[in-house]
Parts: sequence; structure tokens; C-alpha cells
Amino acid sequence: MPIEIVGLDADDTLWHNEGQFQVSEQRFRELMAPWVDDEEVTSRTLLETERRNLRYFGYGAKGFTLSMIETALTLTDHRVDGRRIEQIIGFGKEILDHPVELIDGVADVVATLAERYRLVLVTKGDLFHQESKVAASGLADLFEHVEIVSEKDPATYARVLLRVGGSADRFCMVGNSLKSDVLPVVELGGFGVHVPYHVTWAMEHAEAEGGPRWVEVDGIADVPGAVAGLSA
Amino acid sequence: MPIEIVGLDADDTLWHNEGQFQVSEQRFRELMAPWVDDEEVTSRTLLETERRNLRYFGYGAKGFTLSMIETALTLTDHRVDGRRIEQIIGFGKEILDHPVELIDGVADVVATLAERYRLVLVTKGDLFHQESKVAASGLADLFEHVEIVSEKDPATYARVLLRVGGSADRFCMVGNSLKSDVLPVVELGGFGVHVPYHVTWAMEHAEAEGGPRWVEVDGIADVPGAVAGLSA
Repeated sequence: MPIEIVGLDADDTLWHNEGQFQVSEQRFRELMAPWVDDEEVTSRTLLETERRNLRYFGYGAKGFTLSMIETALTLTDHRVDGRRIEQIIGFGKEILDHPVELIDGVADVVATLAERYRLVLVTKGDLFHQESKVAASGLADLFEHVEIVSEKDPATYARVLLRVGGSADRFCMVGNSLKSDVLPVVELGGFGVHVPYHVTWAMEHAEAEGGPRWVEVDGIADVPGAVAGLSA
Repeated sequence: MPIEIVGLDADDTLWHNEGQFQVSEQRFRELMAPWVDDEEVTSRTLLETERRNLRYFGYGAKGFTLSMIETALTLTDHRVDGRRIEQIIGFGKEILDHPVELIDGVADVVATLAERYRLVLVTKGDLFHQESKVAASGLADLFEHVEIVSEKDPATYARVLLRVGGSADRFCMVGNSLKSDVLPVVELGGFGVHVPYHVTWAMEHAEAEGGPRWVEVDGIADVPGAVAGLSA
């Protein structure tokens, strides 16, 4: 059976995202320099704080900002000054207010895919922020359905497929995260195309080898061919 | 044409919510007492900060927490100490971690409505937090569809109706906010039942008089009768 529905991840698949978080993190490391000699300690403490806070905050820039503030309190034994706290909130707002920058080639590829498949966008993060980005991307009309989710596991994808009336064995998910975009869909009996982005958030790291149900490609331009190959 | 689909708001319609924000705000006012004589000044400054931040943060507890921190910086001229900032983050986590408490009578009323109508839940706020609350409420199975939205305007309701295959003239929305639950649906050609909650967030205040398309009731127990009356 050929692929009927193609799912696309958004952050770092259609547009740049993680880079903005990394810019903020670098500024945050510099902000902590008076208290922390080794910037790696700052990053490690931030990641631990984010992991611990995941059950409260989920994913997205607002939770990231709150975790930076909490990390600053930890690293400075509560001595961090108000001006720095204000700067951290500013880092968060910059992420939230950053214009959407499509990855090169995305507009053409999504238009090409839309001619052949039903397209759904499946993205994780802050609802409000993701909706703004979808609207600003100029791509919304090419998608039959946009689903903003709090977690990307097999149950989530099953729910999305139910919603759009599709079955896993005719569904292919395209994204930059093996862990969130490809493996849960393969587990469900579907297909995947992994398009690595040049930076990956530490919490999304995963290792796996391609198989009959998914492939890795070099860039977004290779996606239409890869999807067609999987469906052959 | 009789009503076919009933939409229900969640926060302060199905379960208690605003009370938790108000508890946090009261604690925040006390936290600011060393710098601010008049607690009303604290509340007013917080509300102004929330309004200004709406375009970045949208609705929900994470944005509220960031706005409290920003307000603390403003009110203390950046002199607020790290321990207090930590307490503010704690207030936010308490809201996010608070168990769901259904409003008296809700479980029976929703079950009654589910026998006669297709039910959709339409709620605003943090995606992750709202999904947790829907899951914890024990009501999820009674709803055909759950839609978590970033804004409740006529366009949002039109999108929800498109998604569930319903038309406005056979749709009735039930909720505690005239501004968000009732008036936009009436504007769309639908019906509404306003169930006031004993406290209303300042940003949700609205005044209007009932008409042929919507009614106000005293409590959730009166909702099935009110919906039936509107559809007669």
C-alpha cells in the first residue's frame, strides 16, 4: 500500500529553532560567569533542571526560561541579582518573538509533497508559540491538519491518525528527531524519514540504525524521494 | 433545528481553577509587602504586566509565573532577593501540580449531556497543563473531541466546528466566561449558556444581557435544561 499521509515535524525540520535556544543558553552561560568558572557546569545544571521540571512545564520556551531562572538561583546560591533575572526573561521573550526562518528548500519540498500526499504538521511545544510560528511560516495552507502536541509517543501519533482518518501502515513521519519523530511512528507500524539538523537538543538525542521502515537523508530536498521509496 | 453539539469550557466550568491563581496572587502580594504598602498596587502592576506579556506568553500558569517574576523586579527596582524569586517559581509549580477538583455536580451533568449531544471540550491555556487536567478529570471519555486553544474567538470556534463536522446553528457553548465562551459563539450564529463562577479573572470580565441565543444559569445543574430550552 502506498503512503497516503505524510506527517512533518516543524522545529528544526521546517524552520530553525534549536539555534535560538542555544544562543540563549550561551548568553546564560556568560551571565553566570561571575559565579561559575566552567561553562559546562552551567549547561549541565540547566539540563538537569529542565529534566526535573519537565513534569511541570512540558516543552517550550516558557518552561526553558523558568528553568534558566531556577538554574541561576542554584548556581549562585540565590545571590543572582535582579538585573540578571530580567535579562533571562528577555532571553525567553527573544525566542518567543523571533521571526520564523524556513530552512532552505522547505517551501518547495512541502509544496511538492502536498501535490501527492495529505499533509499533517505534528509539532511539540508551547501551543501559543507554535500556532504563531505556523501562521508566520506561510505554509499553513499546504497542511490538511496541524496538531500541536505535548509529547510525541506512539499514543500521540495514534490519536493524530484517528483524527485525520489515516492508518499507520500508510503514514510516514518526517523530522529531525529520531526519538520523537521516527521511532514512535515505526513502533506504531508506520514509516519514517529522519532529516538530521546540525544541532540537536540534548534531551532529543537517540541512536538507531535505519531499517525497512525508516531511512535517514542528508537534507529536506531528499525527502520526497525517500517517502516514495518507502512506499514502493 | 435542535442542538446537536455541546461545547464545554473546562477551567472554572468543569473544575476549579481561578481560585488557585488567586491564592498564588495573594501570596505574591504578601511577598511584595516589604516594598509595596498597598497590595492593590501589586495586583494592578501584575495585571498590567500580564496584559503586556500576552503577546509573548499567551494564557496559562507558566506565563503567569514569568509575569509575577517580572512584576517583582518592577516593584522592587530589581532589589527582590533570590529566595523570593524561588518562592514565586514555587507558586507557579503549585498551580501546575494542583490536583483537579471537579465543581459539584459536574460529573452527573456531563454524563447526562453525553446521552443526548455530541460533546466537545474547548479550553484555553498551556497545552501540557490542560492535557494533564483533562486526563486527571476522569471525564475525557465522555467527550468526542478535546480542543485546547490559544485564544477563544469566533475563528477558533469555526475551526473547532469544522474539525468535528458541526454547524454553528446547532452548536451551544457552555462556560463561565461571557467574553470567551458565550459571545464569540453567538457572533458565529450559535448558542450559549453562561454559568458564572464565583470569581472571574480581571482579563475575562465582560458585561452583556441574555437574549434569544444565550442564557445565564445559576449553576452547572441547570445546564441540561437550558440547552434543551435554547434548542426548542
